Parts: sequence; C-alpha cells; structure tokens
Amino acid sequence: MKEFFKLMDLPAVLALTNRFAVTASETVALENALGRVLSAPVAADLDIPGFPRSTMDGFAVAAASTFGASEGNPAYLDVTGTVAMGEETELSVEPGAAAQIATGGMLPAGTDAVVMVEHTDQLDETTIEVYKSVAPGQNMVSRGEDVAAGSEVLSAGTRLRPQELGLLAALGRAVVDVHHRPQVGILSTGDEVVDIRTAPRIGQIRDMNAYTLAGQARRCGADTRNYGIVADDAAALAQRCAAALAECDMVLLSGGSSVGARDFTIEILGALPDTEVLVHGISISPGKPTILARSGTKAVWGLPGHVTSAMVVFAAVVKPFLLHVGGQAMARTPARCLAYLSRNVASAQGREEYLRVRLALRDGELWADPLLGKSGLIRTMVEADGLVAVPKDTEGLESGAVVEVLPL
Amino acid sequence: MKEFFKLMDLPAVLALTNRFAVTASETVALENALGRVLSAPVAADLDIPGFPRSTMDGFAVAAASTFGASEGNPAYLDVTGTVAMGEETELSVEPGAAAQIATGGMLPAGTDAVVMVEHTDQLDETTIEVYKSVAPGQNMVSRGEDVAAGSEVLSAGTRLRPQELGLLAALGRAVVDVHHRPQVGILSTGDEVVDIRTAPRIGQIRDMNAYTLAGQARRCGADTRNYGIVADDAAALAQRCAAALAECDMVLLSGGSSVGARDFTIEILGALPDTEVLVHGISISPGKPTILARSGTKAVWGLPGHVTSAMVVFAAVVKPFLLHVGGQAMARTPARCLAYLSRNVASAQGREEYLRVRLALRDGELWADPLLGKSGLIRTMVEADGLVAVPKDTEGLESGAVVEVLPL
Repeated sequence: MKEFFKLMDLPAVLALTNRFAVTASETVALENALGRVLSAPVAADLDIPGFPRSTMDGFAVAAASTFGASEGNPAYLDVTGTVAMGEETELSVEPGAAAQIATGGMLPAGTDAVVMVEHTDQLDETTIEVYKSVAPGQNMVSRGEDVAAGSEVLSAGTRLRPQELGLLAALGRAVVDVHHRPQVGILSTGDEVVDIRTAPRIGQIRDMNAYTLAGQARRCGADTRNYGIVADDAAALAQRCAAALAECDMVLLSGGSSVGARDFTIEILGALPDTEVLVHGISISPGKPTILARSGTKAVWGLPGHVTSAMVVFAAVVKPFLLHVGGQAMARTPARCLAYLSRNVASAQGREEYLRVRLALRDGELWADPLLGKSGLIRTMVEADGLVAVPKDTEGLESGAVVEVLPL
Repeated sequence: MKEFFKLMDLPAVLALTNRFAVTASETVALENALGRVLSAPVAADLDIPGFPRSTMDGFAVAAASTFGASEGNPAYLDVTGTVAMGEETELSVEPGAAAQIATGGMLPAGTDAVVMVEHTDQLDETTIEVYKSVAPGQNMVSRGEDVAAGSEVLSAGTRLRPQELGLLAALGRAVVDVHHRPQVGILSTGDEVVDIRTAPRIGQIRDMNAYTLAGQARRCGADTRNYGIVADDAAALAQRCAAALAECDMVLLSGGSSVGARDFTIEILGALPDTEVLVHGISISPGKPTILARSGTKAVWGLPGHVTSAMVVFAAVVKPFLLHVGGQAMARTPARCLAYLSRNVASAQGREEYLRVRLALRDGELWADPLLGKSGLIRTMVEADGLVAVPKDTEGLESGAVVEVLPL
C-alpha cells in the first residue's frame, strides 16, 4: 500500500481544486445572506431607478434654460410647482420654468437636469435666479441608468458583500439562492495531544489546531465540526475519519507529521473506499509533509501537527480549495495587499518559504517586517499580520522588494 | 430648537469616539469567540511549551557532540533510547550519545538540540553517523520559549483571529471574557422608501440602506436590528427612534438628507431626553449632511438617504465609532492596503472626497482605478473594491500617487 510520491510544487497542487465537488444550492433570506456565495446569476427584472431621479435638493429644469447662466449673468426661472416625494409627478415644466425638487424626487416632464439649491436665489414666491448652468443629466439619474431591466447584474459564484445585498434589495429579492456553507470536519491526531480542558502533563500539549483551523475555515464561510482527538491508533483514526467524511464536505486531519505518522495516515486514507492520495508532500516551508487525498468528491487533508505550520498550509493551500467547494468563482482577483520587504531574506533550498510579517506604515509606504523567532512559536502568528512567500528558485528576496502579503 | 452648525473636518469628528460607551463584558465558549473582542487582558498561567520540545524528527543530542561534524568527517553517536510521545521522558543522554525523537517529543536530560533524521545515517542498531553539526537550541523549542508563565499574552481590546484562539487554547481557556457585540438599530426614513417585498410605484424606491448598513455593521462584529421604514412624520420617527435607542447601543437613521428632512431629524433628536447634536455636517463628499447625536452614552447617526453616500459615510466615519463601542483597541494599526492611483483626480472644493476604486495587479504593482459614473449608482459600489480619500486642502491627486485603499 505504501506509495512513493515526490514533492509537488504549489501551483500543481492548486490546479487540483476542480477535482472536488461544489456544495449544493439553498435559499436564504436576504438579511442572512451576507458573506454567502450566489449559486445562480441574478438578472434585473426592472429598471433602477424606475424613474428619472434627482440626486440633489434644488430645481428640476430643462438644462437649456440655464445655458450661459453665471454669477454676473443669472438666468431667471419661473417656479411652477413642487415635486412631491414618493409619487409619480404630474407636473410638466416649460422652457424658462423650474419645479422645486428634493433629493430622490422624480423629475417632471420637460426637465433633464437639477440645479442645486445652493446655486440659486429666491427672488420672490415664483421666481428664482440661477447662478450656474447645468448640463443635461446633471444632478440626476435617468431611468435604468444604474441597472437596466433584463441585464445580468451579479454572476454565480459572487460572494455577497453589503453592496451586493443593497443591489438585491433594490431588485426586491427578499430571498436568494446561495451555495450551502461547506461543512468542514476537524480531527486532531497524536498521542501527545490533549483536550484544552485538560491540564497537560509533561510531554503533552493542548489541542490548538482544532481552534486555529476552525477559525480559518469559518473565515472562508464554512461551518466546522470538531471530531476530537484521536491517539495514534489506526482503527480509531480510520473510523473517525470515515464518520467525518460521511457528514462533511472536507476533512482536515492535523498532527501525524512525523515520518511514521505520515505513513500511517496514508495507510488509513488508502483503506477508505474510492479514495486516492493526490498529494504527498508540497515544496513549501513550513508545510512540506502535507497530504491531500480525494475520497469520492471530497478532500481529506493531512496537515502538519505544528500549529503554525498547519496555519500556513491552510492559508496558502487549503483556503483556495475551500473557497472552491463553497462555490466562489475565482475569476475575479480578490483584493491584494502589496508591501515593501524590510530586509534581505534568503531562499530555502528547493522550497517556497512562508515568512510571517508584520505590516507597518512608514513615510506613507507600507513595509512588511519579517518576524524573527523560531517558526514553531504560536506567538509569532499572534504578532503577524500576514505571510509573504519567498520563491523557491531564486536567491531570495532583497530588502525593498515588493511582496504580496497574504492576510492572517 | 434650531441650532447652527458648521461643517466639521473628519479628524475632529473621529476625535469624538470616546464620548460613547463601550459594551459590557460577557463570557463565551472559545469555539464561539472568533472575531470577538477581549474585554480583559489574558496572562499565561503556564509555560508554553511546558517542556523542551523537538520541532523535527531525528535525534536529541548535546549539540557539543556534533561540533565539527560534516559530510567528510561525520560524528558517530550511540543511540541509547527512544523518546515516547506524550510522556515525560526518563531518558538521560550522555555526551557522544543520542536518543531517537519525533516532532513534538520531549528532549531528554543532557540534550539541547535535535539532529534532523535527514542529516544522519543508521550504521547499525545502536550507532548513527551525523553529517551536519547542530547549534544548541536548534530544531527545538525550550520550555517557556513561546510563552512564559506570568506574562501578559493578549491585551484587552484585541479582536480574536484564529491564531489568538490557538494561543487561548494552549492556555486552556475554554471560555473567554469578551465585549458584547454592539446591537445596532437601523431605521430608514422617507416618504419615497418602500419595503423590498413591495413593488415600487413610480416615484418610490426600495429600502436598500437597511441591507447595506446592516451588512457593514455586521462586518464590524455588531448584531443588527431592523426598525423598518418611517415616513416623514415627526411623531412616528421620534417614537421609533426612542424605541431603537432603548434596545440598541447605536442607532443609524438613513434618509432625510434633504434640507427639510435634516431639520426634521435634528428637531426629533433635540426632543429626546439627554440628547445633544454633536455633528451636523462633515466636510466629506459624499456624506456632507451627516448628523451625529449623543443620546445618553449612545450614538445616533443621521446618514444620507442615497445608498452609496450612506455606505461611504459608514466606511469612513461610523465604522471607527462602532469598533470603539465594541471594545476594539485602536492602538494597533490595522492592516492597510496601499496602491498607486491610475489617473489624476481633482480635489472637491473644501471637502475630502471619497472615490470608488477597483484594484488591479499590473506588472507586480497594485493600482487603484477610479470608477467613473455618477456617485448615486449602487452598481459602482458593486464594481468597487475600496474607497480612496482625496484630501480636501490640495489640488487633488496625481496619477501614480500612493493612496490608501479603505476596503469595501
């Protein structure tokens, strides 16, 4: 059953994302849809706005009535009515006339612009002076200018931010179709790992990974389920792993990164039905001993036991897979953060190395300060704002290099 | 009751945050603490790790036993035992000897470093060759090196990320004291605003702000409660506003940004007990007509009715107040995103202007592309990745300028 694998480069690993199934669709209320991922495109079934709408307080006019108006040579307009809010206005405005209008009001027939109230003076009850000309379309939004009926406004795979909720609200979508949150099962292994409610004896360590990995998965929009700690016992691990696979969309095993434990995990995964090990070792540091298996259409990860190594592997490797499983389209580049590296960093031999960095704004420039200290320390993760990858096939990075910072 | 206010600059507004109360403390389970804010500092009551711990698979040694070892001149060591995982080891290792150890194992007495298994050869059952010397402390973490018992490891006001959960797990904190999530009441006003389940008649518009503002508030860690839509009716608004204030830590009114409606909001706020208007107009664009009142120790905001203006005011102004109310300490600069502006932008007269931008990575540089189009369009917010402030007392910003991008 023992197979030989060679270290895979990260891009080759990331190319495997589409080997895994995306979660099904469900319908949720719009007020609960923040951060969820659309499972179907959304088309507009009406124009937004549904009428020509003022974006200022002032006077609706035919723009031509104000041409040439200035402080020295104001235009004089007759105020022939006031637009009521929230109603279809019956007013019609002639050239040389104006209708009083508030922000959000409907422009009357005969008008194509709004003069801001600040650029007018009331001469008497029915006459205003206009000190500034307006162009057609100024200080107003035409019917359908924001969204035209029939157009696709949001594509499937969009993660919903507040502004997307606003657009869906404008379209009257009180419910939306989204992907189920991926369910992620988390399972810690190792004879030395104890529950956090237990006082560790000498030689033991509390189970940090269950909390760090759950937090990272939830930040990707997943729900998590904790399957506890399994000692180094093949039968128990195989059984617990099968239970997690039955109930979850993805399973994260952590621990067992020692050579013996790795073989052990591989053996257990190999014994599950319809399961193949796709990755056994990635050329990144930390995180080299990472295992990825496909069980049916679900991913099972064997992550390093060290808390910081497991966190780095999650951020650099697992996260894109989990976003894929949750239905997020990768077409749109997410916002990135670039910074200047503040000191020279040597490349690790044959591996892409992930540095922990702290961001600092100095003289209007953003600098990534690598955190020193041993990589096994959780404290360095607490002090860090992000990770910077040092490419493997280079001499390293020089101080002042522009680097991308993966947020932590 | 009508008072005169002059436009305030944003920094003067932001200086008012500490006029408002921070939410009380509650105790939550660690697995539910992601994104919550610590209400008390956390000190370590034990050393982490609690024993000298190997970070590699290999052999525990006295580093001195390997000095001078190289490919050409290996050191020969006697393997006198194997460290069991999860137990206090009773082994003691003499100079010239070594104990087999796995990642996470406890270093035996007499050892101060670990030789990686990759740098050794097994000569026979009890002898190894070591091809590379190790320094004292190499490939191991000393007792207390990550966290020393008695030290403060997290300060009050820290927002908990996955790594902070991991540190708390290591300390056995199955429950943590955090600030209550701020409860934010959201109330839309305006005769033209209708519930999203209603088909708007000509002149009407669906209530987007209830969804965009709730989404923004929830992203700041708040809970939200929707108080519906109130037509321009002073008594009804006063009553609903008082109800929201009784149940919430902060209230957001939106709409009523027309001159008349503003006076109206001011009047209602002025009639509430122990309430004073602190801000009536901010020199930002969009968002000038923003109102901030203090009612007891709670903030009531009068935000613009335009969905995009209200979102910008939230991102630039309300958010720091809400984070303060939620207990977040402002001492640590949050991660920032800097980019190059891709075209010249003129400054608005006397106001700090917020541009919507889209981020694009070009030739390894991050560029902020200002989105064109009228500011009233929700679509521009959907297309945007962030906001860039154009300072008010300048000529504007030139193409190529480094700008800070506020995420949207």
